[in-house]
Amino acid sequence: MSRVLAADLAAHEGERVTVKGWVHRIRDLGKITFIVLRDRSGSCQAVFDGPPRLAAADAAHGSDGGHLTHESVVAIAGTVAANDKATGGFELQEPTLELLAAADPELPLSVNRDPAQYGLDAVLEHRMISLRNPKLLSVFRLQAELVRLFAETLRAEGFTEIKTSKLIGTGTEGGTGLFEVQYFDRKVYLAQSPQLYKQAMVSAGLERVFEIGMAYRAEKHDTPRHINEYVSLDVEMGFIDSEHDLMDLEQRLLAAMFAGVAESCSEILDTWDGTVPTADEIARIPRIDYDHARELLKEARGGARVLEINPEGERELCDWAQAEHGVPAVFVHGDPQRKRPFYTYPTDDNKTMSFDLLFRGLEVTTGGRRINEYQMLVDSIRRFGLDPEAMQDYLQVFRFGCPPHGGFAIGLERLTQQILGLANVKEATLFPRDRRRVTP
Amino acid sequence: MSRVLAADLAAHEGERVTVKGWVHRIRDLGKITFIVLRDRSGSCQAVFDGPPRLAAADAAHGSDGGHLTHESVVAIAGTVAANDKATGGFELQEPTLELLAAADPELPLSVNRDPAQYGLDAVLEHRMISLRNPKLLSVFRLQAELVRLFAETLRAEGFTEIKTSKLIGTGTEGGTGLFEVQYFDRKVYLAQSPQLYKQAMVSAGLERVFEIGMAYRAEKHDTPRHINEYVSLDVEMGFIDSEHDLMDLEQRLLAAMFAGVAESCSEILDTWDGTVPTADEIARIPRIDYDHARELLKEARGGARVLEINPEGERELCDWAQAEHGVPAVFVHGDPQRKRPFYTYPTDDNKTMSFDLLFRGLEVTTGGRRINEYQMLVDSIRRFGLDPEAMQDYLQVFRFGCPPHGGFAIGLERLTQQILGLANVKEATLFPRDRRRVTP
Repeated sequence: MSRVLAADLAAHEGERVTVKGWVHRIRDLGKITFIVLRDRSGSCQAVFDGPPRLAAADAAHGSDGGHLTHESVVAIAGTVAANDKATGGFELQEPTLELLAAADPELPLSVNRDPAQYGLDAVLEHRMISLRNPKLLSVFRLQAELVRLFAETLRAEGFTEIKTSKLIGTGTEGGTGLFEVQYFDRKVYLAQSPQLYKQAMVSAGLERVFEIGMAYRAEKHDTPRHINEYVSLDVEMGFIDSEHDLMDLEQRLLAAMFAGVAESCSEILDTWDGTVPTADEIARIPRIDYDHARELLKEARGGARVLEINPEGERELCDWAQAEHGVPAVFVHGDPQRKRPFYTYPTDDNKTMSFDLLFRGLEVTTGGRRINEYQMLVDSIRRFGLDPEAMQDYLQVFRFGCPPHGGFAIGLERLTQQILGLANVKEATLFPRDRRRVTP
Repeated sequence: MSRVLAADLAAHEGERVTVKGWVHRIRDLGKITFIVLRDRSGSCQAVFDGPPRLAAADAAHGSDGGHLTHESVVAIAGTVAANDKATGGFELQEPTLELLAAADPELPLSVNRDPAQYGLDAVLEHRMISLRNPKLLSVFRLQAELVRLFAETLRAEGFTEIKTSKLIGTGTEGGTGLFEVQYFDRKVYLAQSPQLYKQAMVSAGLERVFEIGMAYRAEKHDTPRHINEYVSLDVEMGFIDSEHDLMDLEQRLLAAMFAGVAESCSEILDTWDGTVPTADEIARIPRIDYDHARELLKEARGGARVLEINPEGERELCDWAQAEHGVPAVFVHGDPQRKRPFYTYPTDDNKTMSFDLLFRGLEVTTGGRRINEYQMLVDSIRRFGLDPEAMQDYLQVFRFGCPPHGGFAIGLERLTQQILGLANVKEATLFPRDRRRVTP
């Protein structure tokens, strides 16, 4: 009998079918036992007379002395019958059960309880098991949708996907914050971003490129917003007039991605009390320059001097945007040169054509126009105390004709975190790496 | 005047438009000069009376003493007129030219010549410039399509995309062939594959997962088929009956991917004299076991004993499949246990439920059913001389109920190489990493 998914029982009323999955819950009422089976589509229940007995061969196979254990993998054959009280309105009656893989009874944490009762450390320590919890796993179903929608939206705008090396010969942003790799008999580094390669591919003629790949930051931060390895959704676009073209693009992109998850992930959003801004709200995201942002914070803080926009300031600016523009997001553009990497296009007042997107109090994007003129770039490299000689490969991109261009990068885990309202970005990371954690 | 793409001139006959791109070719006939401009859509020509003069400001900006240079980035405004001899049947007349970014006249290699005249070393050494050649760049347009089609086809079969860490605490396949990373005050390794994580995600309940990510092999091979960092198209699927379910899946997947590139990349295929097998051909791929493969080679070699299937053998087996089954591809399954990693499901005759796909003489996929039973896996780990204690996180996946499952991985660069008939896999890698090369 070929397998039917739990979510598809309704289409098989009265038929005898087989479902396969994990034993999510066992409710032993003495005379009858309910087994809730979980598969990739959802869950369904089967009603046994008394305890579900395992075949002798199965019992010998492991499990708990012939008793069925939570999380064991089973196949249940039964007749599909309507039952208003069952998930999905149908259940399996007169079932027989075959054990496919027995689970040890001593689970490190319960899969079928509200995960909120476990601390983040326990959830991450036992990641292989905690991810079985449907609510925790659903984070990554939504994340997969964000990846899909990012790529599809950009392709529709003429962008080409690229895959560039994460092993780089020299640090490009001054050599700090890089993880060192022993590469045969020399040292190389893990790329902090595909920045230089995506610029190279714009200039090679693709003009519009995106990359979905890992980025590495050897920073010792230990905060709810930092991880040392993350998925960077990178975009780079040629023939722009200014950084505003990039903010326009990001607004179109986010509007499409948010509309997409609102449609395909509505149940997941409900489970987490998560929401996404509408396209109208995204279109209203204000753009304020760095000085204006500091003025707003100064006002909000009763006139105290504001030197930097710190995490608290990012939250306050989003509150301001919500109050004034009806959207909890704001672009802050025109950072001072000292706050941006050497490749950022400068303006006459020692500022830059850069921007950040703050969303619900967290920076989820950084971007800007890049320097595309060879001599200006060489001068900037020197001013940052770097060595143009060490960057000859990169400089070739600009020495031989590079169009005006710019781009941005969205942190996938942070975006997921802000959509679902997760307290820590690690909850939006399958197998997070931080200063102390490299397993599982 | 907003920008029009070179490929779209036909829609603007008689209008004055602006195109933007790179100066691909300058043909100076004295009285008139043809400039071929290249953009992401293709190319088009503009016809100037005499040499195209640069504005004084532009001339001072760089370039070659007021002369236009190849690869400079320009905007050309002109009137669209039909001309049968021009690419696409239209050209720009009465043009004016604005220099956006001047190119140094001393190009390290010519962008507009047949790239076959340059050796691979020169092409890779000057990758930032060689990728501007439309033929060389087209390899990566096709590759982007393979990535898209891989993901779309699997999503339609219920697979979820995952992104897993590439930094692993311990080597999983015996510790050889791993690159070491200095991770704060400890050593970690670059993952050779997402193998253990994709198994974990099947078992966590996604059942069907795929990942598109980098894989690292610290192997000293220096051959046309090896690179040390590559894009692995990984698939893992739960609730299979045998490894034949996986080969079935791969055949459906390749048929869809090949049909997709035949449609969207027909020009690229023509440029390279590349072809893809049809769906009918893919359906005919024979499946032979390891011993049968060795027998075939023995016969083909006049009875000489065949110990291993070496690269020459892989070519001969594909020739055999072409002759006997009309498709240049063959699955070889049932490798002996000693040739496969510890997690491969064994059979009673010291073989395994594994397979390779050979395509046009090259292994492009390796896969198989995995061990899903806890005790069998612990025993196998020990038999391979590894330490189950060091793999407790991984073993949790199996200790608490893991369905029968398996998967495979396709090397993206190798698949691209075989479709286009490239001599070296590095030609199908944007920025290849080999034993000597970590730049650009």
